[in-house]
Amino acid sequence: MGEALGGLKRTLMCGEVRENNVSQKITLMGWVQRNRKLGGLQFIDLRDRTGIMQIVFGEAINAEAFEKAKDVRPEYCIAVTGEVVLREAPNHNMPTGLVELKCESLKILSESDTPPIYIKEGLDAAESIRLKYRYLDLRRPDMQRIFMIRNRISKSVRDYLDDNNFLEVETPMLTKSTPEGARDYLVPSRNYPGMFYALPQSPQIFKQLLMVSGFDRYYQIVKCFRDEDLRANRQPEFTQIDLEMSFVEQEDVIKMNEGLIAHVFKEVAGVDVKLPIKRMTFKDAMEKYGSDKPDLRFEMEITNITEDVKDMDFVVFKSAIEAGGSVRALCLKGGADLGRKPIDKLGEFVKTYKAKGLAWIQLKEDGVKSSIAKFLTDDVTNSIVKTMGAEVGDAIFIVADKNSVVFQSLGALRLELAKQFDLIKDKNEFNFTWITEFPLFEYDEEEGRYHAAHHPFTSPMDEDLDMLETNPGEVRSKAYDLVLNGEELGGGSIRIHDSNLQQRMFKALGFTEESAQERFGFLIDAFKFGPPPHGGLAFGLDRMVMFLAGTENIKDVITFPKNQNAYCYLSEAPNIADEKQLQELGISINVKEK
Amino acid sequence: MGEALGGLKRTLMCGEVRENNVSQKITLMGWVQRNRKLGGLQFIDLRDRTGIMQIVFGEAINAEAFEKAKDVRPEYCIAVTGEVVLREAPNHNMPTGLVELKCESLKILSESDTPPIYIKEGLDAAESIRLKYRYLDLRRPDMQRIFMIRNRISKSVRDYLDDNNFLEVETPMLTKSTPEGARDYLVPSRNYPGMFYALPQSPQIFKQLLMVSGFDRYYQIVKCFRDEDLRANRQPEFTQIDLEMSFVEQEDVIKMNEGLIAHVFKEVAGVDVKLPIKRMTFKDAMEKYGSDKPDLRFEMEITNITEDVKDMDFVVFKSAIEAGGSVRALCLKGGADLGRKPIDKLGEFVKTYKAKGLAWIQLKEDGVKSSIAKFLTDDVTNSIVKTMGAEVGDAIFIVADKNSVVFQSLGALRLELAKQFDLIKDKNEFNFTWITEFPLFEYDEEEGRYHAAHHPFTSPMDEDLDMLETNPGEVRSKAYDLVLNGEELGGGSIRIHDSNLQQRMFKALGFTEESAQERFGFLIDAFKFGPPPHGGLAFGLDRMVMFLAGTENIKDVITFPKNQNAYCYLSEAPNIADEKQLQELGISINVKEK
Repeated sequence: MGEALGGLKRTLMCGEVRENNVSQKITLMGWVQRNRKLGGLQFIDLRDRTGIMQIVFGEAINAEAFEKAKDVRPEYCIAVTGEVVLREAPNHNMPTGLVELKCESLKILSESDTPPIYIKEGLDAAESIRLKYRYLDLRRPDMQRIFMIRNRISKSVRDYLDDNNFLEVETPMLTKSTPEGARDYLVPSRNYPGMFYALPQSPQIFKQLLMVSGFDRYYQIVKCFRDEDLRANRQPEFTQIDLEMSFVEQEDVIKMNEGLIAHVFKEVAGVDVKLPIKRMTFKDAMEKYGSDKPDLRFEMEITNITEDVKDMDFVVFKSAIEAGGSVRALCLKGGADLGRKPIDKLGEFVKTYKAKGLAWIQLKEDGVKSSIAKFLTDDVTNSIVKTMGAEVGDAIFIVADKNSVVFQSLGALRLELAKQFDLIKDKNEFNFTWITEFPLFEYDEEEGRYHAAHHPFTSPMDEDLDMLETNPGEVRSKAYDLVLNGEELGGGSIRIHDSNLQQRMFKALGFTEESAQERFGFLIDAFKFGPPPHGGLAFGLDRMVMFLAGTENIKDVITFPKNQNAYCYLSEAPNIADEKQLQELGISINVKEK
Repeated sequence: MGEALGGLKRTLMCGEVRENNVSQKITLMGWVQRNRKLGGLQFIDLRDRTGIMQIVFGEAINAEAFEKAKDVRPEYCIAVTGEVVLREAPNHNMPTGLVELKCESLKILSESDTPPIYIKEGLDAAESIRLKYRYLDLRRPDMQRIFMIRNRISKSVRDYLDDNNFLEVETPMLTKSTPEGARDYLVPSRNYPGMFYALPQSPQIFKQLLMVSGFDRYYQIVKCFRDEDLRANRQPEFTQIDLEMSFVEQEDVIKMNEGLIAHVFKEVAGVDVKLPIKRMTFKDAMEKYGSDKPDLRFEMEITNITEDVKDMDFVVFKSAIEAGGSVRALCLKGGADLGRKPIDKLGEFVKTYKAKGLAWIQLKEDGVKSSIAKFLTDDVTNSIVKTMGAEVGDAIFIVADKNSVVFQSLGALRLELAKQFDLIKDKNEFNFTWITEFPLFEYDEEEGRYHAAHHPFTSPMDEDLDMLETNPGEVRSKAYDLVLNGEELGGGSIRIHDSNLQQRMFKALGFTEESAQERFGFLIDAFKFGPPPHGGLAFGLDRMVMFLAGTENIKDVITFPKNQNAYCYLSEAPNIADEKQLQELGISINVKEK
């Protein structure tokens, strides 16, 4: 069915042929994009990774090849040899459009059934079909472009880090279950039946051990695993650009990673990232944008109007303020003309973020219109308008509640307004910000105790050390996230390297000495032997590819992704296992009927 | 307990300081190798990844630092600042030996307990202790050197392949159980309780799918997993340099990989690999060296003496020949003086390879001595000696049996003699050979059927296609291994891309259409859509590091290896799992009492 190459060598790639190849005899190999008959000739568009080239067959060029070409169908894999000539009818829309190849010899390397999906740019087939026939989906030029970008990112990351004396070091995949964080994937052991390894959620502990070992600068582009319910844009296995440095403070890590990002974005996309990247504290980010990953491609800051409304006789505002909360607002330029229906929808929207409601003021040409008109005096209105910097034509949206609810709901509303009113002007902008001074702890109301906001090895800020025992909720950490266009691109921290401080940290997290030892034993032990000051960061490679390839679907940047249920349509994994093997592992299936 | 850096920056690495730094003020950071008192001064050897630098403390240099330095113990992590000066007593044995740093300021970044293993070159502590305190074991300069070599290999592999238009593409870790080969590690699924993913033994099927997708050239440095009983130099997880190319034949893959090897060995070790690398067929390798991975650093070929002995009245030889076997021998130069005891030991040695015994002839100054003297005529002896090219002073060792036993036992004896008599003269030699024309099938006597010698996608040689059904045992394949100093460094093959041929192959392997579809379904399906001719290769990265680092223990080249039982002394993995999590996975522990 398929002819052999028989020593035939490809001499160029399809997308590379240009006018300077005219009158050369070349050999191309690839897939038939289309095959048409025209004026007694046969024209095949031949496709490979680099592009498409027109091949022409004719009785007068080579009769045998011409006859064979007539039967060639889309997605056949073929090899063609012939002379490059100028096209009579050039196509200026394709890079190879000025030339064509006059085919003197055709080999059909393999035939193809009619593909169940059409191989072209911008396909919109059902996801399950795309994933089942992923090998065909990946033939689409836009998919190939994504993986060429992914390759370019990885290579430029490695080049930069290698130039900066980082060592690529591999860490284990079969490791111990990590005590905090998401659910681990388990791997049953055969040597120790009934016991399990865990796949790593990140190489965190191992990279810290490598610093204890004196490797000084480590990096790895590494698969990580989380057995979580898959929200959109999550995959059970994902890839991190993971790095760690010794003898550094926060400034050093930030500077190194700014250099990395600038290098990668320049190499891959020709984008000049302006350095230094701006910074914002977690507190500012929450107060101004209601998010620890603010999208700064548009203005619209959240403004505190508690002072302006504190004397209003409006129970919703009053009770929020009295309970220690606040009243804050967003100003939508040109929002004065919004009708009742869209405004009501915005009210519904904020309720999904636990806000009790959304008050609003419209500054129309003919006066003020408001959902809280009967509580507003002119003085209060003027005061709010002034604080907000609002003008005639604008709308003001107000939430009153405890601060966490105010921030979350107004932060979400801010993004929603940007979407609805197209506030992001430059779609190609890459707007970076470091978020710093994260809280060290998060309070878990259900369990009534503090959790580590990042992980228990994150260093508190020196200024806040005294509050570790007395006021843990206020302690800030040496943690930092790099945010790009409202998404977290990466994050890290300076780690604790002082074992006394680590003990205080464990205590604050509610660990006894025993339970800390049980859970983090080998790291605690390692830190008894002269650990260096160290810190690091991990970027989500998948997300970085999404940004640089301009896609919002994580499945587009992973060759063989799983669906929302972590199922692979292609290989049909997971699957049943051999009973004998399960016996060796000391486990048995125990599925309850539903 | 530990001082903070407080903005202090390292300006040089310990191993970098030279005479041209004299009179500069520098800051170094690292670990205390030793601390000694001498002539009213305190001398600390400070160590980091790059080497060791002498730091001197004195009352007159800086009294405060001098006082502090007195209490510093080995493996404390410290930072020192001061001026570089020439040493009064230079040490020409270390790269920094002409200079020292006069310490004006000392920070103790962290203290250290007395380490349970000594941090020095060439340690010989018990393996379990080394692995339990791996983070200290990895501080040893010789271990750090290994991982710097490993990093250098990976980087130069990536550089070469990137220059040759290979794309680094990641393939899934959570995949479907592979039907042939070693035992998979399983990963229970939570979304489909009672079902399992498998960790990949290699990305074989996925890389072939990527070729079907038109990625053209793929590579990946990737973790692979095999749940096998761990022989020496095996680890449950290991790393492959995996690559695949489209539109190629065996010559193209071999040439590309010779270029890769030459690049890596030059970059990493300054070794010039002479290209092209010599080649040998599997048949020649077996007949001459009794191995498909012959060590060619020394001569000593196996010689067939069946013709010479066929008329001897010796039942052992006779019956072997009559049964279709052969009589073959090795000649040990200078072996005539060997005493009876060492010769008897060699006899025992070959018995472990199923040989029934070892006949021998010693060509002594004063005549022939032999274990089979009573069967030897002068004519036969002369004939053997001539065929062997033996001289007075040599010994000839003979095995008669079926060929597989003759090859295996004499191949092993050849290596044993090389070891005992130190036949490998140049220990630094890198002797490469390609082994080609491997058998396509292996006959499984237990199951009474043929198995794929490599995997079922390996292409038969064109010349042997006709024998696929009639004489499968004789069919050779387009498979090739790269052998270095008697070890397999890598191997691969040209794959079948013709679906008719693939069907014939499955049939020859005893698969029905149904069972082939069940096991290899998605690859078979993919090959219906114009698969390109393709082939590839995988190198064992761990083994490559072992060669270039000069170690024979695979644990030395893996940061956190497991022991023979796949147990990690450091993290104590595997471990028990949470009962609730097992319930979610639909499995329960079912360990039988022994």
